[in-house]
Amino acid sequence: MREFEWIARYFAPLAGEHRPFFDDDAALLKPSDGCELVVTTDTLNAGVHFWPETRPERVAQKALRVNLSDLAAMGAKPVGYTLNLALPEHTGDTFLQAFADGLASDQARYGLFLLGGDTTRTQGELSITITAFGETPIGQAVHRCGASPGDIIYVTGTIGDATLGLKRVSEAMIERLELPEPRLAWGLALQSLASAMIDLSDGLLQDLQHICEASRAGAKILSSNVPLSEDARAWLQNEGDIRPLLAGGDDYELLFTLPRARREALLKEAHAQPVAITPIGEIMKDSACVLLDADGKALEINQKGWQHF
Amino acid sequence: MREFEWIARYFAPLAGEHRPFFDDDAALLKPSDGCELVVTTDTLNAGVHFWPETRPERVAQKALRVNLSDLAAMGAKPVGYTLNLALPEHTGDTFLQAFADGLASDQARYGLFLLGGDTTRTQGELSITITAFGETPIGQAVHRCGASPGDIIYVTGTIGDATLGLKRVSEAMIERLELPEPRLAWGLALQSLASAMIDLSDGLLQDLQHICEASRAGAKILSSNVPLSEDARAWLQNEGDIRPLLAGGDDYELLFTLPRARREALLKEAHAQPVAITPIGEIMKDSACVLLDADGKALEINQKGWQHF
Repeated sequence: MREFEWIARYFAPLAGEHRPFFDDDAALLKPSDGCELVVTTDTLNAGVHFWPETRPERVAQKALRVNLSDLAAMGAKPVGYTLNLALPEHTGDTFLQAFADGLASDQARYGLFLLGGDTTRTQGELSITITAFGETPIGQAVHRCGASPGDIIYVTGTIGDATLGLKRVSEAMIERLELPEPRLAWGLALQSLASAMIDLSDGLLQDLQHICEASRAGAKILSSNVPLSEDARAWLQNEGDIRPLLAGGDDYELLFTLPRARREALLKEAHAQPVAITPIGEIMKDSACVLLDADGKALEINQKGWQHF
Repeated sequence: MREFEWIARYFAPLAGEHRPFFDDDAALLKPSDGCELVVTTDTLNAGVHFWPETRPERVAQKALRVNLSDLAAMGAKPVGYTLNLALPEHTGDTFLQAFADGLASDQARYGLFLLGGDTTRTQGELSITITAFGETPIGQAVHRCGASPGDIIYVTGTIGDATLGLKRVSEAMIERLELPEPRLAWGLALQSLASAMIDLSDGLLQDLQHICEASRAGAKILSSNVPLSEDARAWLQNEGDIRPLLAGGDDYELLFTLPRARREALLKEAHAQPVAITPIGEIMKDSACVLLDADGKALEINQKGWQHF
């Protein structure tokens, strides 16, 4: 029976300038002049999407960041979010304070506010739904369906780290899993450059497949070009097979396609960005997705990716 | 591992005209010219917000309608919604088909589309989060904070039926609990009339308290004026105490306050509306909320309302 007390103590302060109307039945949201809103939503459930022992700050931050990653993939700038919490009976103030602290820290980092939400009780495990709102100039959002044969395929950052975090290979890899970094600056920069874009939540191979299906095209990926972290390179040296890293989810890097004519513009942009990008392949006319090893031999893809369910 | 198959089969068809970009990382949403968006979100959990044996169509419809009721309380017109489902292991096609059918039927009834969502697995019970979007002309939304002393307090429909549904008093009352009717037409009409408005989700007394707090005022309610259904009048005759009906949640009627100068305009509007409204009291300068019986004697309020948690 503490819903209202908790909202007042932990969540209302996250509303910032929206505070005066935070308790209304609904929030008002107006895109900036010449912009449209971009809406995305993700649910994280304890025991499925995070370990029950994960620090509450990190659970909160991941729940927010996976949504911000979707905004990045559309080329959008974050504006605000709503928060739905289904809390088990035993939830207490310590958890809620840490959870709210995690959100407050990320709100400051990414420049957005809590617009509203719902706090409920569940007979099951903790479940968090965040719906995030961003904006883009009208007609400027990047979709999955714009890739054309000949476009170069790029990714930001390094691939497969979250998969190694799930295997608890190192603290650094666990941090990559628990605290992904949404590539918002790249997303914004790619608004006028990328022909198609997606964020890597289901695994590189699966998400590339989504781009290919939406664009009615295929792709060729050079596995030796895929950028790996030091930990991932060491792991690959032992294991010998890169495919689990390309099939594992939760990387939250951006994968995008670039018309060749825009290569110079992209390289110029890359100089201004702190996160590296790497070309890993090419969009093909043929509708298949092919993964080639260093000798140009096709590797069988038996795990297309990772599904949340 | 059937997330994508389920989305394609059951949920993508609910996207209507948004279908081409339904699979993108996020949805685009632009309010009509001169309008702003109204955003609300509610979570329903099995065993807490609905009986596990409730028909899936009704669960889906209630999840949507409680959100539409919030839009009604802001004076907004529905536009679209997102859907997050946390599904237990045993969930199958029969459930999902019925659930989607319920949504399709209500989409047609209320004129809105599915914009996107997330389908996840949970180790717990079924949890449904819907985030609904409406629009109002800029600056025209009705808030909780606008009530002034002297304003008349009205409610739509009848009060306490959902409470009797929870007690399984009759099939009609159970239907009122499981299938609330969001008062969207009244909400729109009241945009230019009501000084404050709220939908009754936590119980009349609790929700009136929210209006009073936001408006820094008090209220006087005449219990004998509160409109009751036939079943509720029969129940009251037996039980003798109206307060449980005023403290019980889930009515999803609108409670609004009206400056006296607008009474004629309201009565005119009431002729055009199929659902009755009833004046039940008055906003007072004093900050307390008082409930009076037929003899004008104050009734003690020991249950302020009903909290979801």
